[in-house]
Amino acid sequence: MITVLAGGVGAARFLQGLLQVHPFSDVTIISNVGDDTELFGLHVSPDIDAVLYHLAGLADEERGFGVRDDTFHTLDALSRFGYDTWFRLGDRDLATCLTRTHLLRRGLTLAEATAEVARALAVPAAIIPATNDRLRTKIRTDAGLLDFQEFFVKRRAADPVREIIFDGADSARPADGVLEAIASADAVLVTPSNPLISIAPILAVPGLRDALRDTRAKVVAVSPIVGGAAIKGPAARMLRDQGLEASAATVARLYADFLDAIVIDSVDADLAPRIEAADPHSGRQGMAVTVTDTIMSSMERKAALARATLRAAGVSTS
Amino acid sequence: MITVLAGGVGAARFLQGLLQVHPFSDVTIISNVGDDTELFGLHVSPDIDAVLYHLAGLADEERGFGVRDDTFHTLDALSRFGYDTWFRLGDRDLATCLTRTHLLRRGLTLAEATAEVARALAVPAAIIPATNDRLRTKIRTDAGLLDFQEFFVKRRAADPVREIIFDGADSARPADGVLEAIASADAVLVTPSNPLISIAPILAVPGLRDALRDTRAKVVAVSPIVGGAAIKGPAARMLRDQGLEASAATVARLYADFLDAIVIDSVDADLAPRIEAADPHSGRQGMAVTVTDTIMSSMERKAALARATLRAAGVSTS
Repeated sequence: MITVLAGGVGAARFLQGLLQVHPFSDVTIISNVGDDTELFGLHVSPDIDAVLYHLAGLADEERGFGVRDDTFHTLDALSRFGYDTWFRLGDRDLATCLTRTHLLRRGLTLAEATAEVARALAVPAAIIPATNDRLRTKIRTDAGLLDFQEFFVKRRAADPVREIIFDGADSARPADGVLEAIASADAVLVTPSNPLISIAPILAVPGLRDALRDTRAKVVAVSPIVGGAAIKGPAARMLRDQGLEASAATVARLYADFLDAIVIDSVDADLAPRIEAADPHSGRQGMAVTVTDTIMSSMERKAALARATLRAAGVSTS
Repeated sequence: MITVLAGGVGAARFLQGLLQVHPFSDVTIISNVGDDTELFGLHVSPDIDAVLYHLAGLADEERGFGVRDDTFHTLDALSRFGYDTWFRLGDRDLATCLTRTHLLRRGLTLAEATAEVARALAVPAAIIPATNDRLRTKIRTDAGLLDFQEFFVKRRAADPVREIIFDGADSARPADGVLEAIASADAVLVTPSNPLISIAPILAVPGLRDALRDTRAKVVAVSPIVGGAAIKGPAARMLRDQGLEASAATVARLYADFLDAIVIDSVDADLAPRIEAADPHSGRQGMAVTVTDTIMSSMERKAALARATLRAAGVSTS
């Protein structure tokens, strides 16, 4: 059994590769919900849906979210009713959100609703939100405390990030099966997602981080930072905003308390000794490093990255 | 002040004509809600929206409901999630339903939500649902008791109608302003809508029928039955299913307790004496009859019908 901590598009691409080399019936995906939002009264789960659409072969891979060849007729009509439409929810994407919202209103948990949606989209893996409770990432900027999507989409993540808050995390409970999936896994993989806003909200759910520290499985992350830049999105700049170096070494350090190994890109090979060495200052143990090509520019490269990551976790692959 | 009891498309067409000859700031429309339904968790008000779309110039006049040139991408995607899609809710139409549902969930009444939607669509008339409470038309057929839209849309109104039930009517209260609009009107007009399923659910709200009997305004209906057939829809057959003659005389009789005059089509001129005469059997008084062309095949004819109806109600027109 492989358990994967997943953000949005980076996770989705990594999982596409994993699907090539590992039977998906053995994979449990634990998804970030910190960027969930409410639009027009609908519950929108962008990270869950990014993963589902990619695995269902429906994703708009260029935009990085939503459904390929989607149209925006409902959204455009909604603008007439005074709604903001900077979150470009397409007509087909809306069907997913309507379904999820309808299921939630009928009393299903987010995990149950997600399972229904995944089944309808014929996605074979188990995908579980980190929590069924309300957990919302908020970003403190010089313009005030912003809802995540307002910061990320409306303002294009342009504001310097002063603080990242996971509203509701303190009282959130892990969804059924989350802690078990970590405890009983043969390997736990952390996808190449923004550590501050895609993975951290998962880790903020009480019990998650302890489960990662305690599991007997190897925990392996893939660095989303390559050569000092994020593969996609504002991760590098956000790390610097926090006074951190934008590097795979920082990613390793952020996960140091539970990580056994990290996969970094060949361009960052010189970082390996620093990561492998123990840090006497913090008392941190060193960790194993796999150096490989991490740019997921084709299905072959995605599969190769998944294979290297599984190998680092001690799992044999096909 | 003119108050109009309105069903769906027949009402919408009549109101288009009224808009040509009377200032809409003086018109209050009381709408049927018996055919409201829930689809995908959304509150759909087909009659209210038929009127709004026609008055906003957005209506798909050929289909008789929905928005012109609408697309069905969300609906088609919803079929993947196991939803029935025989109710062809278009993408733009969906925006209206999303907005209404969102407003209802935020605690607004249906009347308040309707006012917001009308304002956004720049419809200048006041349109009030007959009730804010849940009132649903159900049709007893040999296939069982059907929700109205299942009977009307899914099964194309093909089943013989054994009984028509207005579920919830007993405990429904008139929406704010409904009784006042009838009591204080200079004229009350009943649109050429199906008397059994478009107007009867309005009359079923406790207090409505008494208000119509008691108002000092003249109450004038336009017959939707012309030459023994309905202008549109199954009204004629439904009347026969109830053991009634499909004629303007029956319409007059169904409204006899509150109607002062009826407008019938020229082809039915021979019915006028029967309607004008008192009915010693039932004790019914005779009523005034206006005979004119009632087929609303052009804007000119719609306006002429509105003018004739207002004249029958004693209102001078421009």
